[in-house]
Amino acid sequence: MDPRISIITIAVDDLDRMAAFYEAMGLVRHRIRDGVAFFQMGGAILSLFPRASAEKDAGIAFGTAPPRVYLAYNTRTEAEVGEVLALAESSGGRIVKPAGRAFWGGWYGYFADPEHNLWEVAHNPDFPLDAEGRISLPA
Amino acid sequence: MDPRISIITIAVDDLDRMAAFYEAMGLVRHRIRDGVAFFQMGGAILSLFPRASAEKDAGIAFGTAPPRVYLAYNTRTEAEVGEVLALAESSGGRIVKPAGRAFWGGWYGYFADPEHNLWEVAHNPDFPLDAEGRISLPA
Repeated sequence: MDPRISIITIAVDDLDRMAAFYEAMGLVRHRIRDGVAFFQMGGAILSLFPRASAEKDAGIAFGTAPPRVYLAYNTRTEAEVGEVLALAESSGGRIVKPAGRAFWGGWYGYFADPEHNLWEVAHNPDFPLDAEGRISLPA
Repeated sequence: MDPRISIITIAVDDLDRMAAFYEAMGLVRHRIRDGVAFFQMGGAILSLFPRASAEKDAGIAFGTAPPRVYLAYNTRTEAEVGEVLALAESSGGRIVKPAGRAFWGGWYGYFADPEHNLWEVAHNPDFPLDAEGRISLPA
Protein backbone atom coordinates (compact mmCIF):
# COMPACT_ATOMS: atom_id res chain seq x y z
CA MET A 1 0.00 0.00 0.00
CA ASP A 2 1.26 3.43 -0.91
CA PRO A 3 1.27 6.10 1.80
CA ARG A 4 -2.11 7.75 1.35
CA ILE A 5 -5.56 7.89 2.90
CA SER A 6 -8.07 8.65 0.16
CA ILE A 7 -11.38 9.00 1.96
CA ILE A 8 -12.33 9.47 5.59
CA THR A 9 -15.93 8.37 6.11
CA ILE A 10 -18.09 9.24 9.08
CA ALA A 11 -21.10 6.95 9.34
CA VAL A 12 -23.83 9.35 10.45
CA ASP A 13 -27.22 9.00 12.09
CA ASP A 14 -28.60 12.26 10.67
CA LEU A 15 -27.06 13.10 7.30
CA ASP A 16 -28.75 16.49 6.88
CA ARG A 17 -27.80 17.69 10.35
CA MET A 18 -24.22 16.51 10.01
CA ALA A 19 -23.80 17.96 6.51
CA ALA A 20 -25.17 21.28 7.79
CA PHE A 21 -22.63 21.27 10.61
CA TYR A 22 -19.68 20.73 8.29
CA GLU A 23 -21.01 23.35 5.87
CA ALA A 24 -21.30 25.78 8.78
CA MET A 25 -17.63 25.00 9.53
CA GLY A 26 -16.84 26.45 6.12
CA LEU A 27 -16.55 23.29 4.04
CA VAL A 28 -18.20 22.97 0.64
CA ARG A 29 -20.53 20.03 0.08
CA HIS A 30 -20.38 18.36 -3.33
CA ARG A 31 -23.64 16.73 -4.32
CA ILE A 32 -22.73 13.78 -6.48
CA ARG A 33 -25.67 11.57 -5.56
CA ASP A 34 -28.35 11.48 -2.89
CA GLY A 35 -27.73 9.81 0.43
CA VAL A 36 -24.11 10.83 0.84
CA ALA A 37 -22.27 14.12 1.42
CA PHE A 38 -18.76 14.60 0.05
CA PHE A 39 -16.28 17.34 0.91
CA GLN A 40 -13.00 17.79 -0.97
CA MET A 41 -10.33 18.16 1.74
CA GLY A 42 -7.13 19.00 -0.13
CA GLY A 43 -5.89 15.72 -1.55
CA ALA A 44 -8.37 13.62 0.41
CA ILE A 45 -12.16 13.43 0.70
CA LEU A 46 -14.42 13.58 3.75
CA SER A 47 -17.58 11.54 3.30
CA LEU A 48 -20.73 11.49 5.43
CA PHE A 49 -22.64 8.28 4.82
CA PRO A 50 -25.71 7.05 6.72
CA ARG A 51 -24.84 4.50 9.36
CA ALA A 52 -27.42 1.95 8.19
CA SER A 53 -26.07 2.07 4.64
CA ALA A 54 -22.48 1.78 5.78
CA GLU A 55 -23.22 -1.08 8.17
CA LYS A 56 -25.12 -2.96 5.49
CA ASP A 57 -22.38 -2.39 2.94
CA ALA A 58 -19.54 -3.60 5.16
CA GLY A 59 -21.57 -6.14 7.13
CA ILE A 60 -20.37 -4.60 10.39
CA ALA A 61 -22.19 -3.00 13.32
CA PHE A 62 -20.52 0.20 14.46
CA GLY A 63 -20.56 1.34 18.05
CA THR A 64 -22.47 4.31 19.39
CA ALA A 65 -19.77 5.61 21.75
CA PRO A 66 -17.34 8.27 20.47
CA PRO A 67 -15.19 6.51 17.86
CA ARG A 68 -11.58 5.77 18.68
CA VAL A 69 -10.64 6.97 15.20
CA TYR A 70 -10.56 10.75 15.25
CA LEU A 71 -9.34 13.64 13.16
CA ALA A 72 -7.07 16.61 13.60
CA TYR A 73 -7.14 20.00 11.93
CA ASN A 74 -3.80 21.74 12.23
CA THR A 75 -3.73 25.53 12.12
CA ARG A 76 -1.15 28.03 10.95
CA THR A 77 -1.26 30.10 14.16
CA GLU A 78 -2.09 29.60 17.83
CA ALA A 79 -4.91 32.13 17.60
CA GLU A 80 -6.71 30.05 14.99
CA VAL A 81 -7.14 27.17 17.44
CA GLY A 82 -9.60 29.07 19.59
CA GLU A 83 -11.31 30.50 16.51
CA VAL A 84 -11.97 27.03 15.07
CA LEU A 85 -13.22 25.74 18.44
CA ALA A 86 -15.58 28.72 18.72
CA LEU A 87 -16.78 28.14 15.16
CA ALA A 88 -17.48 24.50 15.99
CA GLU A 89 -19.56 25.58 18.99
CA SER A 90 -21.53 28.17 17.04
CA SER A 91 -22.07 25.61 14.26
CA GLY A 92 -23.77 23.12 16.58
CA GLY A 93 -20.81 21.18 17.93
CA ARG A 94 -19.34 21.13 21.41
CA ILE A 95 -15.99 22.26 22.78
CA VAL A 96 -14.59 19.16 24.47
CA LYS A 97 -11.36 20.79 25.63
CA PRO A 98 -10.75 24.54 25.39
CA ALA A 99 -7.58 25.81 23.75
CA GLY A 100 -4.51 25.47 25.94
CA ARG A 101 -0.88 24.40 26.04
CA ALA A 102 -0.27 20.82 24.91
CA PHE A 103 2.05 18.36 26.64
CA TRP A 104 3.95 18.18 23.31
CA GLY A 105 4.57 21.92 23.32
CA GLY A 106 1.94 23.28 20.93
CA TRP A 107 -1.42 24.96 21.46
CA TYR A 108 -4.53 22.85 21.03
CA GLY A 109 -8.03 21.84 22.00
CA TYR A 110 -10.79 19.47 20.98
CA PHE A 111 -14.31 19.75 19.66
CA ALA A 112 -16.97 17.17 18.90
CA ASP A 113 -19.38 17.35 15.99
CA PRO A 114 -23.13 16.94 16.67
CA GLU A 115 -22.75 13.13 16.71
CA HIS A 116 -19.79 13.13 19.11
CA ASN A 117 -17.03 12.54 16.60
CA LEU A 118 -13.86 14.07 17.98
CA TRP A 119 -11.60 16.60 16.25
CA GLU A 120 -8.35 17.87 17.65
CA VAL A 121 -7.48 21.43 16.61
CA ALA A 122 -3.80 22.07 16.97
CA HIS A 123 -1.00 24.46 16.22
CA ASN A 124 2.18 22.41 16.05
CA PRO A 125 5.18 24.29 14.64
CA ASP A 126 7.14 21.01 14.53
CA PHE A 127 4.73 19.65 11.89
CA PRO A 128 4.85 22.29 9.13
CA LEU A 129 1.99 23.05 6.74
CA ASP A 130 2.86 23.97 3.18
CA ALA A 131 1.04 26.57 1.07
CA GLU A 132 -1.60 23.99 0.13
CA GLY A 133 -2.14 22.92 3.73
CA ARG A 134 -0.29 19.62 3.42
CA ILE A 135 1.28 18.63 6.72
CA SER A 136 4.71 17.03 7.17
CA LEU A 137 6.35 15.13 9.97
CA PRO A 138 9.68 16.57 11.05
CA ALA A 139 12.61 15.21 9.01
CA MET B 1 -11.85 26.00 8.63
CA ASP B 2 -9.94 25.36 5.45
CA PRO B 3 -10.58 22.11 3.58
CA ARG B 4 -8.00 19.77 5.05
CA ILE B 5 -7.64 16.91 7.49
CA SER B 6 -4.16 17.01 8.95
CA ILE B 7 -3.95 13.94 11.15
CA ILE B 8 -6.04 10.78 11.40
CA THR B 9 -5.49 9.18 14.81
CA ILE B 10 -6.38 5.63 15.73
CA ALA B 11 -6.50 5.17 19.51
CA VAL B 12 -4.95 1.72 19.92
CA ASP B 13 -4.96 -0.92 22.62
CA ASP B 14 -1.63 -2.46 21.56
CA LEU B 15 0.69 0.08 19.98
CA ASP B 16 3.45 -2.36 19.02
CA ARG B 17 1.07 -4.80 17.38
CA MET B 18 -0.77 -2.11 15.48
CA ALA B 19 2.42 -0.37 14.34
CA ALA B 20 3.74 -3.74 13.14
CA PHE B 21 0.56 -4.29 11.12
CA TYR B 22 0.78 -0.93 9.36
CA GLU B 23 4.52 -1.45 8.73
CA ALA B 24 3.70 -4.85 7.20
CA MET B 25 1.21 -3.03 4.96
CA GLY B 26 4.18 -1.16 3.53
CA LEU B 27 4.00 2.08 5.49
CA VAL B 28 7.07 3.67 7.07
CA ARG B 29 6.96 4.44 10.78
CA HIS B 30 8.58 7.69 11.90
CA ARG B 31 9.85 7.55 15.45
CA ILE B 32 9.55 11.04 16.80
CA ARG B 33 8.94 10.12 20.41
CA ASP B 34 8.01 7.04 22.40
CA GLY B 35 4.40 6.09 22.92
CA VAL B 36 3.12 7.12 19.50
CA ALA B 37 3.62 5.88 15.93
CA PHE B 38 3.44 8.34 13.03
CA PHE B 39 3.17 7.53 9.34
CA GLN B 40 3.44 10.22 6.64
CA MET B 41 0.49 9.61 4.30
CA GLY B 42 1.00 12.02 1.42
CA GLY B 43 -0.16 15.40 2.71
CA ALA B 44 -1.65 13.97 5.89
CA ILE B 45 -0.40 11.93 8.84
CA LEU B 46 -1.66 8.67 10.32
CA SER B 47 -1.06 8.47 14.05
CA LEU B 48 -1.39 5.47 16.36
CA PHE B 49 -1.77 6.66 19.95
CA PRO B 50 -2.55 4.49 22.97
CA ARG B 51 -6.21 4.57 23.92
CA ALA B 52 -5.58 5.41 27.58
CA SER B 53 -3.42 8.37 26.62
CA ALA B 54 -5.93 9.63 24.07
CA GLU B 55 -8.88 9.23 26.43
CA LYS B 56 -7.04 11.06 29.21
CA ASP B 57 -5.97 13.85 26.87
CA ALA B 58 -9.44 14.49 25.46
CA GLY B 59 -11.39 13.53 28.59
CA ILE B 60 -13.54 11.15 26.54
CA ALA B 61 -14.15 7.40 26.74
CA PHE B 62 -14.06 5.77 23.33
CA GLY B 63 -16.16 2.76 22.46
CA THR B 64 -14.84 -0.72 21.88
CA ALA B 65 -17.05 -1.63 18.89
CA PRO B 66 -15.74 -0.99 15.37
CA PRO B 67 -15.55 2.81 15.03
CA ARG B 68 -18.05 4.54 12.78
CA VAL B 69 -15.22 6.67 11.43
CA TYR B 70 -13.35 4.62 8.85
CA LEU B 71 -10.80 5.05 6.11
CA ALA B 72 -10.54 4.29 2.42
CA TYR B 73 -7.52 3.52 0.31
CA ASN B 74 -8.23 4.08 -3.36
CA THR B 75 -6.22 2.11 -5.91
CA ARG B 76 -5.15 2.86 -9.46
CA THR B 77 -6.43 -0.45 -10.85
CA GLU B 78 -9.11 -3.02 -10.03
CA ALA B 79 -6.47 -5.71 -9.59
CA GLU B 80 -4.84 -3.78 -6.78
CA VAL B 81 -7.97 -4.04 -4.64
CA GLY B 82 -7.57 -7.78 -4.13
CA GLU B 83 -3.84 -7.39 -3.67
CA VAL B 84 -4.25 -4.88 -0.84
CA LEU B 85 -6.92 -7.05 0.84
CA ALA B 86 -4.62 -10.09 0.62
CA LEU B 87 -1.75 -8.04 2.03
CA ALA B 88 -3.95 -6.96 4.93
CA GLU B 89 -4.78 -10.59 5.67
CA SER B 90 -1.16 -11.74 5.51
CA SER B 91 -0.16 -8.78 7.70
CA GLY B 92 -2.49 -9.83 10.53
CA GLY B 93 -5.72 -8.12 9.53
CA ARG B 94 -8.98 -9.62 8.35
CA ILE B 95 -10.82 -9.44 5.04
CA VAL B 96 -14.27 -8.15 5.98
CA LYS B 97 -15.64 -8.13 2.42
CA PRO B 98 -13.78 -9.70 -0.50
CA ALA B 99 -13.22 -7.70 -3.65
CA GLY B 100 -16.31 -7.36 -5.81
CA ARG B 101 -18.46 -4.98 -7.83
CA ALA B 102 -19.70 -1.97 -5.88
CA PHE B 103 -23.22 -0.55 -6.08
CA TRP B 104 -21.59 2.70 -7.23
CA GLY B 105 -19.94 0.98 -10.16
CA GLY B 106 -16.37 0.45 -9.04
CA TRP B 107 -14.50 -2.53 -7.61
CA TYR B 108 -13.95 -2.69 -3.88
CA GLY B 109 -13.75 -4.60 -0.63
CA TYR B 110 -13.06 -4.03 3.07
CA PHE B 111 -10.45 -5.15 5.55
CA ALA B 112 -10.13 -4.60 9.28
CA ASP B 113 -6.84 -4.03 11.07
CA PRO B 114 -6.00 -6.18 14.13
CA GLU B 115 -8.14 -3.94 16.37
CA HIS B 116 -11.18 -3.98 14.07
CA ASN B 117 -10.76 -0.58 12.47
CA LEU B 118 -12.31 -0.69 9.03
CA TRP B 119 -10.66 0.22 5.72
CA GLU B 120 -12.40 0.28 2.40
CA VAL B 121 -10.15 -0.54 -0.55
CA ALA B 122 -11.63 0.76 -3.76
CA HIS B 123 -10.99 1.41 -7.41
CA ASN B 124 -13.25 4.27 -8.43
CA PRO B 125 -12.46 5.73 -11.87
CA ASP B 126 -14.88 8.60 -11.16
CA PHE B 127 -12.61 9.85 -8.35
CA PRO B 128 -9.24 10.28 -10.08
CA LEU B 129 -5.87 9.98 -8.36
CA ASP B 130 -3.08 12.29 -9.48
CA ALA B 131 0.60 11.31 -9.75
CA GLU B 132 1.08 11.99 -6.04
CA GLY B 133 -1.95 9.91 -5.06
CA ARG B 134 -4.19 12.88 -4.24
CA ILE B 135 -7.83 12.04 -4.90
CA SER B 136 -10.41 14.38 -6.43
CA LEU B 137 -14.16 14.42 -6.51
CA PRO B 138 -15.62 14.63 -10.03
CA ALA B 139 -16.00 18.21 -11.23
